[in-house]
Amino acid sequence: MTPPFVHGFRIRYGECDPQGIVFNANYVAFVDHAFTELWREAFGSYQSMVDRGIDMVVAELNLAFLGSARFDDLVEIRATIERLGTTSMTTRLELARGDESLVEARIRHVFVETATWSKTPLPAWLREGLAPYVAAPLGKQAKK
Amino acid sequence: MTPPFVHGFRIRYGECDPQGIVFNANYVAFVDHAFTELWREAFGSYQSMVDRGIDMVVAELNLAFLGSARFDDLVEIRATIERLGTTSMTTRLELARGDESLVEARIRHVFVETATWSKTPLPAWLREGLAPYVAAPLGKQAKK
Amino acid sequence: MTPPFVHGFRIRYGECDPQGIVFNANYVAFVDHAFTELWREAFGSYQSMVDRGIDMVVAELNLAFLGSARFDDLVEIRATIERLGTTSMTTRLELARGDESLVEARIRHVFVETATWSKTPLPAWLREGLAPYVAAPLGKQAKK
Amino acid sequence: MTPPFVHGFRIRYGECDPQGIVFNANYVAFVDHAFTELWREAFGSYQSMVDRGIDMVVAELNLAFLGSARFDDLVEIRATIERLGTTSMTTRLELARGDESLVEARIRHVFVETATWSKTPLPAWLREGLAPYVAAPLGKQAKK
Repeated sequence: MTPPFVHGFRIRYGECDPQGIVFNANYVAFVDHAFTELWREAFGSYQSMVDRGIDMVVAELNLAFLGSARFDDLVEIRATIERLGTTSMTTRLELARGDESLVEARIRHVFVETATWSKTPLPAWLREGLAPYVAAPLGKQAKK
Repeated sequence: MTPPFVHGFRIRYGECDPQGIVFNANYVAFVDHAFTELWREAFGSYQSMVDRGIDMVVAELNLAFLGSARFDDLVEIRATIERLGTTSMTTRLELARGDESLVEARIRHVFVETATWSKTPLPAWLREGLAPYVAAPLGKQAKK
Repeated sequence: MTPPFVHGFRIRYGECDPQGIVFNANYVAFVDHAFTELWREAFGSYQSMVDRGIDMVVAELNLAFLGSARFDDLVEIRATIERLGTTSMTTRLELARGDESLVEARIRHVFVETATWSKTPLPAWLREGLAPYVAAPLGKQAKK
Repeated sequence: MTPPFVHGFRIRYGECDPQGIVFNANYVAFVDHAFTELWREAFGSYQSMVDRGIDMVVAELNLAFLGSARFDDLVEIRATIERLGTTSMTTRLELARGDESLVEARIRHVFVETATWSKTPLPAWLREGLAPYVAAPLGKQAKK
């Protein structure tokens, strides 16, 4: 199954360490960057959500390293929202170079009000904008 | 219980993002940095392990974000090796500002030979050097 | 006059600091990145030069900050090689957002042999590949 | 002559690139970091200046690369304010490993009001606090 969001980019030299591979911390920056691009596709920009009084913070992040990206590699981050809860969202991401999966990530965001920085339910417009990126429940997936 | 390894440092300005807090990716860099300092305490330096033909790679990393460090905060990373396996090591870390826990991390490293980059059992000298940082099994903990 | 090389990209969130603008160090990373892309256009990739035994190191870098790029800004780096010497190259770069020039840079690279890491004259193939990016001497510029 | 401000620190692994040396952009981060520490020594903290309504921005930065710092190197940044003008300050910095000078930098900051972000003369308290770090005019230097 094709994941609903794909963002391709190149690995920069300064993102790699003396082992010649991407320094692990930078994969987290790539995940952040992928959300910026997903929000651009869904809402025009990340800022357009902030302008409407909503922001999001990371509560949990799990990473599994299967391989290594190198300088100048063309890679893709593929993202699927696994669960859109009342005030939180869990997303599964994969960073891959062609067919080769290099990093798998699962991240849980909590939505907050920009005014108070406290947890807030997702407004309807946000839920609707994200709907195309949410994994279909098993019963609703297309039959092959 | 005091964790067996503690490393204190200050948050730098460039490590913070427009929210005024540490950009999440940098916590992973801090975890990496803590291992460098643990290795210095245990073995003189990280390089002294590499010089003996052993290196390590991260297989898994789990992070839970409870709070946020800010520019110029004096923080500590506290580390305890939870499990020293045959070819891998699992470490629990906490980044705290005083009494306040900001990030909890669990990381699994795999030891590799520098020559072949393939998985290798921990040699005895490495196991012995790390022993002071391994959490005592429950039965062996000091009674209060 | 249009500069001979232009590379456009977006500012990422983690590249910005608590002032909400790009952290100065990251402009240097952008300059590095621009050379990677110039080399891709001229030679296929940066690595293709390294594979032929030549690398380059930065000897001097001057930056003038006229404005600030912000998160999600679409910016361009425009580059013109000012001088292609025997063993070195001086390049003028401008980072701009539309008509607004934000950072001006001048950088001097020295070419080195990868085997010995010592200074080496530019081989003919490198000089030819870079020729389209060299500023025309005043006498040779097209009349208007 | 000993420069009036010295800050020592270690190079972190993630600050180095596939050449095994510090990625050039990170030297700019180190320069920024040195000012944070100079301000701590002079004023208690950088924030204490901001709290009094003054901030500073970089107008120009010149770097000369003479050598390379590597992972785990213990280095020093040595700083001398060359000129304290009406609204700006020029500082000369050197990053060294022992006797070996690796990077020389000259940086010009402009002082701004935090409220309007516009150029402002240095208040007396700031000028006094920085006085110990200003290079003595030639006539006033101690005779040997």
